[in-house]
Amino acid sequence: MDETIISAPGKVILHGEHAVVYGKTAVASSLNLRCFVRALPSEDGCINLDLPDVFLQRQWTVKSVQDNLLPRLVQNGYDGIVSPEPASEDELEILKEFAKIPKDSTATTSELAVIAFLYLYCKVFCSSSKRTLPAFRLRMISELPVGAGLGSSAAFSVCLAAVLLQWSGQISCKSPQHLPREDYRGDTAMSGSLGWSRDEQLLINKWAFLGEKIIHGQPSGIDNSISTLGGAISFQNKIIETVQKMPKLRILLTNTKVPRSTKLLVAGVRKRHEKHTLVMEHMLEAIEGIAQQSLRVFAALSDKPYDTEAYAELEELIDINQSLLNGTGVGHTSLDKIVALTARYNLHTKLTGAGGGGCTYTLIKPGADEDDIKNVKKELELEGFQCWETCVGSAGVAYHPTGHSDPTVPQQLFES
Amino acid sequence: MDETIISAPGKVILHGEHAVVYGKTAVASSLNLRCFVRALPSEDGCINLDLPDVFLQRQWTVKSVQDNLLPRLVQNGYDGIVSPEPASEDELEILKEFAKIPKDSTATTSELAVIAFLYLYCKVFCSSSKRTLPAFRLRMISELPVGAGLGSSAAFSVCLAAVLLQWSGQISCKSPQHLPREDYRGDTAMSGSLGWSRDEQLLINKWAFLGEKIIHGQPSGIDNSISTLGGAISFQNKIIETVQKMPKLRILLTNTKVPRSTKLLVAGVRKRHEKHTLVMEHMLEAIEGIAQQSLRVFAALSDKPYDTEAYAELEELIDINQSLLNGTGVGHTSLDKIVALTARYNLHTKLTGAGGGGCTYTLIKPGADEDDIKNVKKELELEGFQCWETCVGSAGVAYHPTGHSDPTVPQQLFES
Repeated sequence: MDETIISAPGKVILHGEHAVVYGKTAVASSLNLRCFVRALPSEDGCINLDLPDVFLQRQWTVKSVQDNLLPRLVQNGYDGIVSPEPASEDELEILKEFAKIPKDSTATTSELAVIAFLYLYCKVFCSSSKRTLPAFRLRMISELPVGAGLGSSAAFSVCLAAVLLQWSGQISCKSPQHLPREDYRGDTAMSGSLGWSRDEQLLINKWAFLGEKIIHGQPSGIDNSISTLGGAISFQNKIIETVQKMPKLRILLTNTKVPRSTKLLVAGVRKRHEKHTLVMEHMLEAIEGIAQQSLRVFAALSDKPYDTEAYAELEELIDINQSLLNGTGVGHTSLDKIVALTARYNLHTKLTGAGGGGCTYTLIKPGADEDDIKNVKKELELEGFQCWETCVGSAGVAYHPTGHSDPTVPQQLFES
Repeated sequence: MDETIISAPGKVILHGEHAVVYGKTAVASSLNLRCFVRALPSEDGCINLDLPDVFLQRQWTVKSVQDNLLPRLVQNGYDGIVSPEPASEDELEILKEFAKIPKDSTATTSELAVIAFLYLYCKVFCSSSKRTLPAFRLRMISELPVGAGLGSSAAFSVCLAAVLLQWSGQISCKSPQHLPREDYRGDTAMSGSLGWSRDEQLLINKWAFLGEKIIHGQPSGIDNSISTLGGAISFQNKIIETVQKMPKLRILLTNTKVPRSTKLLVAGVRKRHEKHTLVMEHMLEAIEGIAQQSLRVFAALSDKPYDTEAYAELEELIDINQSLLNGTGVGHTSLDKIVALTARYNLHTKLTGAGGGGCTYTLIKPGADEDDIKNVKKELELEGFQCWETCVGSAGVAYHPTGHSDPTVPQQLFES
C-alpha cells in the first residue's frame, strides 16, 4: 500500500431537469470541478478521516473497528467474500452507534459521509482476499460546493471506493497518467476514467453507489456513474445510458448561492402539471426534444469540435430550455439576472438542477473573447455570485501517481 | 344631421400571438383605450378632417369631391346603391391623386388614413338613399398610441364608419347611453357595442374593415371586429369567433417604446421553427392549450367575477405564456424588465403582440392594493415606459349623445 491520490469529477445536468420526473430524457455530464482524496499508510494503528471542507476530522483505532464494528457488519467472520450490497437499516444503526451519532436526530451530510466511509472501509476490505484492515490517513479536498446539486457527495464516494478497492487489491491502475487539468482549453475530448479497465470502473461505480445511498437516501445513480465514467450520460425512466460521443465543452459555472429546496420545487412543478396538464405535457415534450437534439449536436461536435453552427445550436437549445424551465415555475430572479448579464456578452445561460436559485452554466465557445469571459465573471462575482471557469464532458475518476508534483492536484491535500 | 360623438376601443392579444401564424388559436380582446371622433355639420361647404394626434389637418370643398372624385369612384352616377367592396388598385390611385399624395412614394399611415376617410365618405353616402354629400368637420382624438399594435387605425376606421353610416341614415342609435369610462373598477361585464343593433354593428364592421384595408394592406379583420363588437374574440385559421362570455378585466398596459418590426420577429420565429420544428411545435401546442384554457377561465369569471382562484389561474397562464414567447425568441430586455418589476409587486405580465419590445399587459386582480398599482406605475414610468391603467373586455363602438357634458369624452375633442 502506497500513498494514493485519486480524483473524481462532479456533474451537471445539461438538459432535462424536472422533465426527467415525468419520464423524459435528462442529459447529464461530468463537471471538471473535482473531489481529491489522498490516502497514506499510517504506522500509528489508526484510521484518520480528514474532511477540512466540511470541518470534519475523525479518528478510530483499527483495533476498535476490528473488535466492535466489523463483527456486527460481517457476520460470517472473515470467511465469505462480501459482495456490494446496500447497507441495511440495522447496519446503519450499528454504524451510527459506532460513530457516536445520536440515534434519534437526523444525521448531517458530513455525519452521513463518516458512516459511508466506515461502511465502505469495512465492506470493501472484506470483499477482497486481502482481508486485513489497514491503518491509514485519508484526506479529502473538494473543488465542488456542497449541497449545490453538483454531485459532491458522489464524487467523494467514488474517490473513496477507488482508494479502498485499489488498496485491497481488487483493482489496479494499469496506465497511471496525469489528468491534464487545463486541457479544456484544448480540443481533446476526454471521457472514460483514467487508469482502470471498464470492469474495474464498474466495480468502483457499484461501491460508490452504496456510499452515495448512505449519504443521499435514494440517489438515482446518475451522479456516481458520471463521476466514475466521466463524459456524459442520458437518463430516462431509471435507465442510464452512456453518451458515446461527448465533446469536452468549456463552461462558466455560476452558483447563485440562493438556497433552494429541490423537494419543494419538484412539488411546485407537480402542482402546475396537475393544474395545466396539457400545457405542461407539451412543454415537457419540448424539453425532451431539446435533450434529444443536444445529444445529436454533441455527437456532431465530437467529430467537428470547432463547428460554429453546432455551437450556435447548443446556445439556442440553452435559451429555449431556460425559457421552458421558467415556464414550469422553477425560475428565480437571481437566475434571470445571470441570464441577462451573460446575454450582454452574447453568452447563453441556463439553470442546472432544481432551479429556484442553485447553479447555472454558461456555454463558452471556442474562440470566445477571453477579456469578455474575464469581465463577465467579474461582473457576476460583483453581484455576489460564485463562478468557476471549467468544463463538462471531462474524464471520470482518475489516479494521480505523481501527486506531489502534479500541478492539477490541490496543494491543500498535502497539508497537515 | 346633428353633432355626433362616437368612440371605439383598441385591442390587445391576450394569448396566442405568433402561434396564430401556425394555425393555433389567438384570443384578442377590446382595450378600453379609445379613439374618439366628433362630427359636426358645417355651413362653409367644406369637409374638414382634423387628426391632431398625427398632426394632420386637411380640407376639401364638397364641390371638389362631388366634381372631381365622386364620378371616378362611383361610375354609375348616383343611380346604383353602392355596396361595401374593397377599394381597387385603380380607386386607390384616384384617391391618392385627389389627396395630392405623391404617386410613387410609399404613403405614410396618416396619408393612408386620409385616403380611407375619402373612400368611406364617398362610398358610404353613395350606399345610402340619402346620397347628398354633407359639409362637416370631423375631429379625432385617440387615447391609443399609433403603431404599437393596439389597433389604433381600426378604432379610427370603426368610428369613421359609424359616423358616416349614422349620418347617411343607414344605422340609427336606438338606446343612446353613456359609456361609463370608470366602470372597470366595478364588476359589470360589458361587451357588445352600445347603441346599435347586431345587424347595424355588422354593417359598421364591414365598412370599417374596408378602411382598415386601405390603412393596413392585409388586415386579419380582428382589430375592426373587436373594436366594433367589444368583448373578445378567438381567431384560428382566419375564422373569427366571438367569445360569448368575456369578463371585464382590469389591466396595466405598458408600452416599452422599443420599436420593433413585426415582420422580422415573425421571420425569426419561422427560422427557429424550421431549425427546431419538433421542439417549437410542442411549444406552440402549449400556447394553444393556454389560449383554450384562458377561454374557459374567462367564461368562469363571467359568472363569478371575484373568483380568486380563476384570477390565480389567469396569472399562471400569463407567466407560462410569457416564458414560452421568450422561448420562441421574441423576448426583449425591456420586456424582461417590466416582467421583473411588476413581479416584485406580485403582478403578472406578458408581452402582447409581436414582442421584441412593443407592449405588455399586467393583470390587476379585484382588491389589488391601489398604492401598489400607483407605485408600480410610477416605477415603470421612471424606467421610461408609458403606462395606462385600463381594462380589457369592455364595450365596442359607442355613441356619446351628451358629448360635451360626458366626462368620459376627452375635452380636446371640442377644441379649435
